[in-house]
Amino acid sequence: MLSKIELSTPEEGFIKITREIMNIVEESGVKEGICTVFCPHTTAGLTINENADPDVVRDLTLAMNTLSPDRKEYRHAEGNSSAHVKALLTGSSLQLIISHGKLLLGTWQGIYFAEYDGPRSRNVFVKIIEG
Amino acid sequence: MLSKIELSTPEEGFIKITREIMNIVEESGVKEGICTVFCPHTTAGLTINENADPDVVRDLTLAMNTLSPDRKEYRHAEGNSSAHVKALLTGSSLQLIISHGKLLLGTWQGIYFAEYDGPRSRNVFVKIIEG
Amino acid sequence: MLSKIELSTPEEGFIKITREIMNIVEESGVKEGICTVFCPHTTAGLTINENADPDVVRDLTLAMNTLSPDRKEYRHAEGNSSAHVKALLTGSSLQLIISHGKLLLGTWQGIYFAEYDGPRSRNVFVKIIEG
Repeated sequence: MLSKIELSTPEEGFIKITREIMNIVEESGVKEGICTVFCPHTTAGLTINENADPDVVRDLTLAMNTLSPDRKEYRHAEGNSSAHVKALLTGSSLQLIISHGKLLLGTWQGIYFAEYDGPRSRNVFVKIIEG
Repeated sequence: MLSKIELSTPEEGFIKITREIMNIVEESGVKEGICTVFCPHTTAGLTINENADPDVVRDLTLAMNTLSPDRKEYRHAEGNSSAHVKALLTGSSLQLIISHGKLLLGTWQGIYFAEYDGPRSRNVFVKIIEG
Repeated sequence: MLSKIELSTPEEGFIKITREIMNIVEESGVKEGICTVFCPHTTAGLTINENADPDVVRDLTLAMNTLSPDRKEYRHAEGNSSAHVKALLTGSSLQLIISHGKLLLGTWQGIYFAEYDGPRSRNVFVKIIEG
């Protein structure tokens, strides 16, 4: 089963997609298996982090901007190399476990689409394998 | 097959869990497949790095503390945003290959649980898919 | 199905392996499934980033060297701890989706082997699971 989530993103930030992925898993009817979440973009990524206090993802944005500022030495003509670096650091796929028909997540875990070069229309693919 | 590893972690550092995961793979009897290792926490992660010289993971801890210091601009009330950033940079899952009944790892590769906000009781889930 | 790609790498940089992985997927005959790409080395990694403008991966190299310079505090006798840190930040596996017999990649996505401590002979493993 392959599904697609469509997002309209802000300039930057972490957009929670936990509920959308949970719904896809539950609608699949798969009880035991794995779930691959894939970001087909090169200036965005996927990550799992705290779902409760929104200050955490606000702090993550601040940290990523500190780790990967724009640098005058960059040559990429589009001018968004700092976002490409953040994408490398974040990663473009997540591998999740399905158990008893549900995503196996920790109490505090939420799944986020990390936008580093928005606003844009973005997609996320979700693939479920039974086993 | 879904298994759980339970860990008691120190304040920070990389805890080797290669042997525990190898045992789960070997006990499963699966000869060919993939193995997903998942960390259900938001201030810790999973990584693969050198298994021989313990100075490597000591140097990794030093580097992560340099890359993600505490910052006075952070707002998260719990005060551990620097650990949440390290978790983002490290990643929360590993995807491994099973071949001839064993984990396919390079000579120098060990599997580590990265603790960034201990000491705590932590879990790691291991899911095996045959194929 | 398990395949191996062999590479001779330069001192550092991002080597495109998109075509090699696409070929393995197409030769497998698998129409729907997932594809795990695994790097069995501890001073290199795997990442997905822009495939069009070669200045992007040139800028990524510059950024990784800025994020992880050699540090006099490092103790690892081999002297390549900065490369081990880059490997941690990059990650050692990619999880890809196969749809309609092809890799599901975004328009601008290329798959790269990230060499942080070459030149060396390196391997990449590719495992396909149907489902």
